[in-house]
Amino acid sequence: MSKEMTSSRTSISDPIAEARRQWLAHGWEEAATGMAAVTTLTRVQQILAGRVEEALAPLGLTFARFEILRLLGFSRSGRLPMGKISDRLQVHPASVTSAVKRLERDGLIRREPDTVDSRIVLAVLLPAGTDRLDPATAAVNEVFAGVGLDDSRLDVLIELLSPIRRLAGDPVAGGEAEND
Amino acid sequence: MSKEMTSSRTSISDPIAEARRQWLAHGWEEAATGMAAVTTLTRVQQILAGRVEEALAPLGLTFARFEILRLLGFSRSGRLPMGKISDRLQVHPASVTSAVKRLERDGLIRREPDTVDSRIVLAVLLPAGTDRLDPATAAVNEVFAGVGLDDSRLDVLIELLSPIRRLAGDPVAGGEAEND
Repeated sequence: MSKEMTSSRTSISDPIAEARRQWLAHGWEEAATGMAAVTTLTRVQQILAGRVEEALAPLGLTFARFEILRLLGFSRSGRLPMGKISDRLQVHPASVTSAVKRLERDGLIRREPDTVDSRIVLAVLLPAGTDRLDPATAAVNEVFAGVGLDDSRLDVLIELLSPIRRLAGDPVAGGEAEND
Repeated sequence: MSKEMTSSRTSISDPIAEARRQWLAHGWEEAATGMAAVTTLTRVQQILAGRVEEALAPLGLTFARFEILRLLGFSRSGRLPMGKISDRLQVHPASVTSAVKRLERDGLIRREPDTVDSRIVLAVLLPAGTDRLDPATAAVNEVFAGVGLDDSRLDVLIELLSPIRRLAGDPVAGGEAEND
């Protein structure tokens, strides 16, 4: 799908730069750079998410389902409460439930009530899920290792975006001094 | 929706920094920074898109539908071929068709065949669409003007992400010298 979105024209102009020109021509100076930045972020996220999904598709996984498997793989006992998965992945509980149901149907995890507090539902990694994790992690890591920017630029990017996460109430590691 | 995704816990650690630690602990150094960057991009895009959608919802629009209206508003005659809309917005033709159908149902645009080449379908802005554009543009511009980073940082962000767009085949304005 991401391939179809590459330009089919040879001499088309940059659509984001063109939108910015329109914004400035209409006198919306205070919003033009923000518009260009949000549109750029959206486009780049679409490109990168597309690559991750392409890498995982042959393994019968989406990025959302991979992230849940990976989190369970990191946990000591291969089991986590559904609410904790939602917190750690910053994904809506309904989305976690839907992804977990699909993983369960595929035989990669199962759900069970917590033995101490039966109101808590646990997702439990099954051996088939563990087996799927190794090739899936290798596949996404190939994408992550080839994003197209060197690590120092990626670190600048992460730092640059931190204040937006912080403003949204996310817990963000690192210095509070975003105005260096 | 974005509000529900703000952390409900007081002392939870940064989930992206935590994932990065896990990546490093498992020996995936070459992919750890890329993973953290892609995850950060995804989260920030989710935060900002959520704000834009919240701003447009009272006006009965989504960002996808707003972008089409806005593009038609910029065009000289208020009409554009569907294929051109897809190109300019870098959105899949099927998504454009779906959004255009909804805009048509809402009485904001209509579709008509091009008079010269009837195989080409045009989307045509209607007066109700023009009326909706002013408040909708003001609403998204409020979000764009308050992204949470000053313009010079937003410009750094746009520049930093350009090579990824370029690698994906997007036409990107500005210098080719991404390795300054």
